[in-house]
Amino acid sequence: MPHRKKGIIALFSFFPFGWHPVHVKSLTENLWFEIPNRRGFVNITGTIEGLVKKSGVEEGICLVNAMHITASVFINDAENGLLRDYEVWLEKLAPHEPTSQYHHNRTGEDNADAHLKRQIMGREVVVAITKGKLDFGPWEQIFYGEFDGRRRKRVLVKIIGE
Amino acid sequence: MPHRKKGIIALFSFFPFGWHPVHVKSLTENLWFEIPNRRGFVNITGTIEGLVKKSGVEEGICLVNAMHITASVFINDAENGLLRDYEVWLEKLAPHEPTSQYHHNRTGEDNADAHLKRQIMGREVVVAITKGKLDFGPWEQIFYGEFDGRRRKRVLVKIIGE
Amino acid sequence: MPHRKKGIIALFSFFPFGWHPVHVKSLTENLWFEIPNRRGFVNITGTIEGLVKKSGVEEGICLVNAMHITASVFINDAENGLLRDYEVWLEKLAPHEPTSQYHHNRTGEDNADAHLKRQIMGREVVVAITKGKLDFGPWEQIFYGEFDGRRRKRVLVKIIGE
Repeated sequence: MPHRKKGIIALFSFFPFGWHPVHVKSLTENLWFEIPNRRGFVNITGTIEGLVKKSGVEEGICLVNAMHITASVFINDAENGLLRDYEVWLEKLAPHEPTSQYHHNRTGEDNADAHLKRQIMGREVVVAITKGKLDFGPWEQIFYGEFDGRRRKRVLVKIIGE
Repeated sequence: MPHRKKGIIALFSFFPFGWHPVHVKSLTENLWFEIPNRRGFVNITGTIEGLVKKSGVEEGICLVNAMHITASVFINDAENGLLRDYEVWLEKLAPHEPTSQYHHNRTGEDNADAHLKRQIMGREVVVAITKGKLDFGPWEQIFYGEFDGRRRKRVLVKIIGE
Repeated sequence: MPHRKKGIIALFSFFPFGWHPVHVKSLTENLWFEIPNRRGFVNITGTIEGLVKKSGVEEGICLVNAMHITASVFINDAENGLLRDYEVWLEKLAPHEPTSQYHHNRTGEDNADAHLKRQIMGREVVVAITKGKLDFGPWEQIFYGEFDGRRRKRVLVKIIGE
């Protein structure tokens, strides 16, 4: 079929004149956590790196967000002293006790402070993906921050790019 | 025209060998607010859900950001007691009075505290869109937070995906 | 070569029936800073605007993030009094002295407060690009915030769209 063959050649020869076909890829994953205490931090960098590799995205972005409103995803240093400093500091800025100081706790909850702490630490991070990897500075690490644990909670990972 | 028909066949048969055409869609909308008091919170989740549907994006992200620097867009719980707790807490962390304590207010403004409060609550949220919907946890709701109201202000919604 | 010509015509005539080819463009750049003091703010809006233009992206998003965990990228007002207010306010919320109050500083560092300040001000901003420009409100300006300077640090700019 000579005509068909010609059609393919025409397609190729057209590409350089202003456009080229692309793959837009996306990957959606849920990570589950059940922190045994009320508060805690978990380094999830390795897990996210694995998902970026799995996605096959070379150039794009990676959104990682807590799906619960008393938890955070944030980027900072994997140093245990600092994580302890965050714990002490957040307790000073938004103390758990007395629980009666918060209107929210009149609903029967005791976690109003957790909703406040999460606003300081943030809900989400957006990380660039360059050449198939998280485009990170030397000390950047992604953490899940729990402020009202002892139950199962999710983090969403959404990767988009090509 | 048999040759033309052959060309189309060639195009189809080429697709599976490594690429396929895509739609990259985007939608840009402005939401307007005029909060009658200095401070207030508005749940805009339903509005954003409607815009995601309108965009036709199945897999992508939705950026929602305050376009004014004394306002926030944030995600937390649609519980009135908690919103009141945020109000009290932000006033403690960045009090409005005395207005003379802030250098910014020497410009004739009285809203320096609003610029500070907005940094705690954040400028923007980025939400994943999966299968045509906001990919949300069970209690996630999007709020507009006003810290210096009584005038018209805008929020930008940008949806990108395919 | 009449056959080849027919093939090109077929390609064009197919486009309107449900899809069209797209450019997905991305641009990745590093900005370098060396702030002479421990703390400081730099307005980087003009630089980011130049990179958006360079990228050729008409509809998309621009991620700007600190690559160091004692620095921030944030959007607020280019008013010197306000920047001074941020400095005073952050020092009140997360004081540098006494450095011995922080567990992190037992590692030999003295910058634990900088890690805390950066959480208040944020790591990153995501800005919409509409019609080839940053889609900004009237007063929005992008700042680099340094909380532990006197050494070279990077900011990442990632622009994605079409």
